[in-house]
Amino acid sequence: MNPILGRSGAAALVAVVASAGALAQQSPRPEQLIKWRQSAFQVVAWNNGRIKASLEGTYNKEEVVKAANTIAAIANGGLGSLFAPGTDRGKGWHDTNAKPELFQDGNSRHVGELALNFAKEASELARVAAAGDAASVKEQFGKVNRTCKACHDDFRAKD
Amino acid sequence: MNPILGRSGAAALVAVVASAGALAQQSPRPEQLIKWRQSAFQVVAWNNGRIKASLEGTYNKEEVVKAANTIAAIANGGLGSLFAPGTDRGKGWHDTNAKPELFQDGNSRHVGELALNFAKEASELARVAAAGDAASVKEQFGKVNRTCKACHDDFRAKD
Repeated sequence: MNPILGRSGAAALVAVVASAGALAQQSPRPEQLIKWRQSAFQVVAWNNGRIKASLEGTYNKEEVVKAANTIAAIANGGLGSLFAPGTDRGKGWHDTNAKPELFQDGNSRHVGELALNFAKEASELARVAAAGDAASVKEQFGKVNRTCKACHDDFRAKD
Repeated sequence: MNPILGRSGAAALVAVVASAGALAQQSPRPEQLIKWRQSAFQVVAWNNGRIKASLEGTYNKEEVVKAANTIAAIANGGLGSLFAPGTDRGKGWHDTNAKPELFQDGNSRHVGELALNFAKEASELARVAAAGDAASVKEQFGKVNRTCKACHDDFRAKD
């Protein structure tokens, strides 16, 4: 036994290890966060495709409502936490496509604005979809897609 | 030129090819559907973890509401379409874990009930989360998890 640490030192070490364990449980690994954000954007892509199919083919209100609600839930669901420090590089399902600029402090305000725009326009799309007018959905869907593109242009690397 | 088909036959062939193209646009490949459903369940897992962390640590109503809303949107969002015929085997992000039994006609009613239970309990969780009582959320969260387990027990292969 370390004569300086003694019993209380050992107890403190146990406490630190236990605490690190608890922290690990609450803070998933960067690779897990990257996998989740890649998954979340895939779910957005799936639902985006459903709305597009409805607008280009036979309009199906029920499909569009479900898809718009899912996109809105994800857009408002705290995606920012999946871009935590340490996730600027790494592999989820695949290497992240996020540009390093996304994680630079000087860009945080701009990133926050882009995320808020996505959330705002997606919520509006869910509202418009529930009302059921296809022309209004098409217009609002365009606004949502422009918020996607705005963020991709600045912060997603080309495949 | 085929003397029997003639011009109208060629036109019909063009129409069939064009129609197949439109169908391909509206009906994503099985691998794409598998990737989307694997993504959707990852998003559920992410949000499940957020609620668990809140129930086991410091309760954060805003976090729980966002997470519950996302799970409810996905549970009610038409997951069934991601298990279309032809997706009983194949690779999305990884080989599907779905058991062949999930796709057997004789099980469709049971599968439908399990899916409805998930949707119903997830919707109730979103309602309870908005009300903000942690004890009620914990109880309802348990009910949601039991609907997950019921389906996994019957239809998800062990890793």
